[in-house]
Amino acid sequence: MRRILVIGIGAGDPEQLTLQAVRALRGTDVFFLLDKGEVKSDLTRLRREMLDAHVPQGTYRLVAARDPERDRGAGGAAYSPAVGEWRSARAGLYERLIAEELGEDETGAFLVWGDPALYDSTLGILEEVLARGTVTFAYEVVPGISSVSALVARHRTGLNRVARPVQITTGRRLAEGFPEGVDDVVVMLDAQQAFQRYAGEDIDIYWGAYLGTPDEILDSGPIAEAGPRIERLRAEARARKGWIMDTYLLRRRPHDR
Amino acid sequence: MRRILVIGIGAGDPEQLTLQAVRALRGTDVFFLLDKGEVKSDLTRLRREMLDAHVPQGTYRLVAARDPERDRGAGGAAYSPAVGEWRSARAGLYERLIAEELGEDETGAFLVWGDPALYDSTLGILEEVLARGTVTFAYEVVPGISSVSALVARHRTGLNRVARPVQITTGRRLAEGFPEGVDDVVVMLDAQQAFQRYAGEDIDIYWGAYLGTPDEILDSGPIAEAGPRIERLRAEARARKGWIMDTYLLRRRPHDR
Repeated sequence: MRRILVIGIGAGDPEQLTLQAVRALRGTDVFFLLDKGEVKSDLTRLRREMLDAHVPQGTYRLVAARDPERDRGAGGAAYSPAVGEWRSARAGLYERLIAEELGEDETGAFLVWGDPALYDSTLGILEEVLARGTVTFAYEVVPGISSVSALVARHRTGLNRVARPVQITTGRRLAEGFPEGVDDVVVMLDAQQAFQRYAGEDIDIYWGAYLGTPDEILDSGPIAEAGPRIERLRAEARARKGWIMDTYLLRRRPHDR
Repeated sequence: MRRILVIGIGAGDPEQLTLQAVRALRGTDVFFLLDKGEVKSDLTRLRREMLDAHVPQGTYRLVAARDPERDRGAGGAAYSPAVGEWRSARAGLYERLIAEELGEDETGAFLVWGDPALYDSTLGILEEVLARGTVTFAYEVVPGISSVSALVARHRTGLNRVARPVQITTGRRLAEGFPEGVDDVVVMLDAQQAFQRYAGEDIDIYWGAYLGTPDEILDSGPIAEAGPRIERLRAEARARKGWIMDTYLLRRRPHDR
């Protein structure tokens, strides 16, 4: 039976690979590298460098493919159907890659930035491929250091405060309102800098971009002060590199101190 | 200046150490091993085995100390003051350990299960020690694979659903009510199996204990079916080993399918 590994490779620092991930890389026959286009070629290069550093050349094959484009322009109510179509197109691609490029007794791997459990579609797509029933395989997940863990480690702070909850959500949701019942919120996938809406509140932001890479940028402080700086840093970095990956923690200050 | 490393060592599987953590272990002069008493001696042994596997003997010193007892009997409103006293006692201990056992130019390390960012007090206590002003040091955090990441990797599922939030909270809070605005909730530190309260709802549970160790137990399913099994497994394991570390994800099923 074919075997698929979904390997979390950390947030960007090659040293964030776990020993388990290195072992998984070495046991892989075929790596499926999905390219999101020119702007993210830095990330493709980083993945190839990880392979060069840990796996002897000639022991594996690389299969590169172009990821289907996602219609990110669709907003609000149109979000879910657009995501559905995009996932379906990806499932078709993955199905073809596994059926055509992976031998019956071989192990294939998808390398996922951060942790495959957080805002990554690979597991859902593999389930969709299995549900189609045209190709069978067993699969396993190797957890990775998420950008969330990397972010707070660099800021030397925790995700939660003592005995309190933390929520992880998207920029789109944060733009609709601050989550109920929590004072610590991690925001991912925020292209619109939704934190700006909360500049008038007693909230600190802990922000990071390109975490763990030589391009890493960190900033923190009350949103009213740090927000404009982050906005500027983010625009400059995005213009310089052509893409940005960033995330942040919002922490509401207690009123009773 | 003294240097302190707070190293996340993964959820229990020694292979979940990152390359960065291994490098940090090798650069450490003094390991502070805080023992929570007899029942958790398995965990102390596991940490010593990690050191034996990755760091040459004779290159470091081990300083073991007994962690101050926490009054876990205090419930409800008494919770925060009890935690405050316990943290203060720990800060006093850490202050003494760093001042007396670590040389001025040496590196000390605290090894934290999982990720130091999630429901661990080490970072807060180090800040409290620094605020006291009697001993100075620089400190860094090495992120680790949390039990949350390990849990969902073993269940081969994500933490969040597409474009949706996830909340990480405590058993104590879950016992008070299901969090607002989220359908995916990870629960840690639950000694009371608070999930039982939700057995009548359309919620699936993904549970794991001793994750990544040879004693690992997994179970999942609708709470109404899996809940009683988990309760039995948990009681048996706890009786056999004398302690248990477990966590779970609750996932509300969508109504519109």
